[in-house]
Amino acid sequence: MEAYKKVINYLNDVREKKPLIHHITNYVTTNDCANIVLALGASPVMADETEEVEEMVSIASSLVINIGTINNRTLTSMLKAGKKANEIGVPVILDPVGAGATEYRKNAVERLISEIKFSVIRGNLAEIKTICGFEAASKGVDSTENEDGVSETIQAAKNLAVKLKTVIAITGKADVITDGKKVYIVENGHEMMKNVTGTGCMSTSVIGSYCSVTKDYVLAAVAGLITMGVAGEKAYERLISIDGTGSYRMYIIDAISNISGDEIVRRGKLNEG
Amino acid sequence: MEAYKKVINYLNDVREKKPLIHHITNYVTTNDCANIVLALGASPVMADETEEVEEMVSIASSLVINIGTINNRTLTSMLKAGKKANEIGVPVILDPVGAGATEYRKNAVERLISEIKFSVIRGNLAEIKTICGFEAASKGVDSTENEDGVSETIQAAKNLAVKLKTVIAITGKADVITDGKKVYIVENGHEMMKNVTGTGCMSTSVIGSYCSVTKDYVLAAVAGLITMGVAGEKAYERLISIDGTGSYRMYIIDAISNISGDEIVRRGKLNEG
Amino acid sequence: MEAYKKVINYLNDVREKKPLIHHITNYVTTNDCANIVLALGASPVMADETEEVEEMVSIASSLVINIGTINNRTLTSMLKAGKKANEIGVPVILDPVGAGATEYRKNAVERLISEIKFSVIRGNLAEIKTICGFEAASKGVDSTENEDGVSETIQAAKNLAVKLKTVIAITGKADVITDGKKVYIVENGHEMMKNVTGTGCMSTSVIGSYCSVTKDYVLAAVAGLITMGVAGEKAYERLISIDGTGSYRMYIIDAISNISGDEIVRRGKLNEG
Repeated sequence: MEAYKKVINYLNDVREKKPLIHHITNYVTTNDCANIVLALGASPVMADETEEVEEMVSIASSLVINIGTINNRTLTSMLKAGKKANEIGVPVILDPVGAGATEYRKNAVERLISEIKFSVIRGNLAEIKTICGFEAASKGVDSTENEDGVSETIQAAKNLAVKLKTVIAITGKADVITDGKKVYIVENGHEMMKNVTGTGCMSTSVIGSYCSVTKDYVLAAVAGLITMGVAGEKAYERLISIDGTGSYRMYIIDAISNISGDEIVRRGKLNEG
Repeated sequence: MEAYKKVINYLNDVREKKPLIHHITNYVTTNDCANIVLALGASPVMADETEEVEEMVSIASSLVINIGTINNRTLTSMLKAGKKANEIGVPVILDPVGAGATEYRKNAVERLISEIKFSVIRGNLAEIKTICGFEAASKGVDSTENEDGVSETIQAAKNLAVKLKTVIAITGKADVITDGKKVYIVENGHEMMKNVTGTGCMSTSVIGSYCSVTKDYVLAAVAGLITMGVAGEKAYERLISIDGTGSYRMYIIDAISNISGDEIVRRGKLNEG
Repeated sequence: MEAYKKVINYLNDVREKKPLIHHITNYVTTNDCANIVLALGASPVMADETEEVEEMVSIASSLVINIGTINNRTLTSMLKAGKKANEIGVPVILDPVGAGATEYRKNAVERLISEIKFSVIRGNLAEIKTICGFEAASKGVDSTENEDGVSETIQAAKNLAVKLKTVIAITGKADVITDGKKVYIVENGHEMMKNVTGTGCMSTSVIGSYCSVTKDYVLAAVAGLITMGVAGEKAYERLISIDGTGSYRMYIIDAISNISGDEIVRRGKLNEG
């Protein structure tokens, strides 16, 4: 498929150019995000001081905003950095962690999406539904699969993508990625990934890394989710009986650092929706 | 023993109900706490913005307060969240990390225990002694075994439990858990756990997870410390000569994610004091 | 070499005395820093509340200041803690992460080095050059090797050491350590270390640990970089084909926790420049 060629090109470009990926993110999974970005071949920088973020994003190739442990100070920084990024053409990626859990988060996300143009928004179904205005009580920050069926999900994602002029990426058993026109389904990954904190955040950071080397953000998001999904599968396959989620997390990062374009093609489960 | 049956029930309940465990915690060990809670089967959320914490704790099944990197902002959040939790009947667990190290921490803990009713307070001997008002200079945040003998420890813990109407859990070579009446001694664990940062914090998070499925907080604390102790032992047993504290930390999380009720009964070293 | 004897003595002293190493550091790599300090044998404490840091540093044996995710609040804490440490003779070590990336960081570092006397400043070449006033655009926080040759680096480091009355430690393919008079070159380590976030931060924490047991800060810095370098080599040697940067990071911590004085002598690649 044509898409795979592009994905491989993105991977090669990231490894060659080592783009700087500025993160304003939570303190729970930030180490994993930094390590996954390095494992992919890019260069992470985490910086959230309000006085610094505009300058930092100016030397970066993309900006990842993750609201996992957002507070008023970091919200201000996210808004400043995001607007600056929009001004100078640096892509901005949003991870609306636990968006529906509290009014505070809902309002924060509303401000972020009204004041910043995002290239990609990646969340689980509950988070994206919250942004859609659906009634979906997010239970904490972990994904909750529901049984609505994929078609309702796809339509909601398309509508939101059109409304916000962005790419929406919903991760779950099957990942749905759309810019409002094209729809891609990625069926890679393993359910054990849900049992490790930060696999969602890491996916967003990988997407952010790919967004730094192309303007085709829908395929950058596809690339990110295939890459993470394949890594989750490879990591699962090497588990022995006494291994659990601790080792699994390390193996995911291992797999990213070893991933090749060939593997992405061979293992990728990408379909157009 | 009757207690083991309950412990197994708690474990099964956590895995079935996946309760949301709200943490206001430090940024050093938060990733491990999130991963250990997931490994056990519960669902962690870390959130500390003052404007958000009351709402977050309202959808949670327990609240873990850990003062490891406390500051004035997060202290305010801890107080707000803790009071709200008390109002609505959500159990609150305190980890008074390094309580005796500075006047600032002593005062913070004093405010926390005077304004919030805790279901369980878990610390090492120096930390608990500080709360007792003993003269015990805490050296940083790591446990210091002393030679007072267990009996003095037990009496101090019982007095404190009665005074604060809480469960006191002191971890060390032998763990002492008491609600002021009953006393339990847990002798699981391995001394290598002291060489990994956050094993204490993780124990508290595991206790917090169990507290979300029972009102019998003394047994919830017992369950938490047996679970962590058995995990520490299993993790130790699989070490090879070139492994050290890095791998050991992963293996502890692995062990929690694989632990079974049977193992807890078979390996548990629980005695009533 | 006489130097090795001292390095072994420092290692033994750290393991025996378990000195408390106070960190005011970033939230990205803080867990690794805490674990590497414990693995070496010392005792870490991370504390950054402005009201607390002077008291905390007063019970510590050294202070590590790392600006990785600095903000205005933590800068204030760094300045207070650093001045207090200077007053009472506690060594202070600086890691100027990403010093050249923004004006904010440049100014922060300028304030830190003008108001605090540091025992050791450890950075990569770009960071140290920024402090030197060289024109060196730091690209994020990762090291960038240049082709200036080692001699220019050495001269710049010597000048800076004399100017700031400190020890300068520049890490890279070869590490350069100097107090302005003596120059040491350490050629241990492995290039894969660059692909793990925080190996620089961890090096600084190891140096900080050694600085707590000697006044010979140039050799404490040498000891720290040999120790980390040897650990990086040992960790690399045990990698299997499916391992990557996730496991490598754990293996580095493993190697530190197992390192012996004999290994340091046998594997050390130390030369006087």
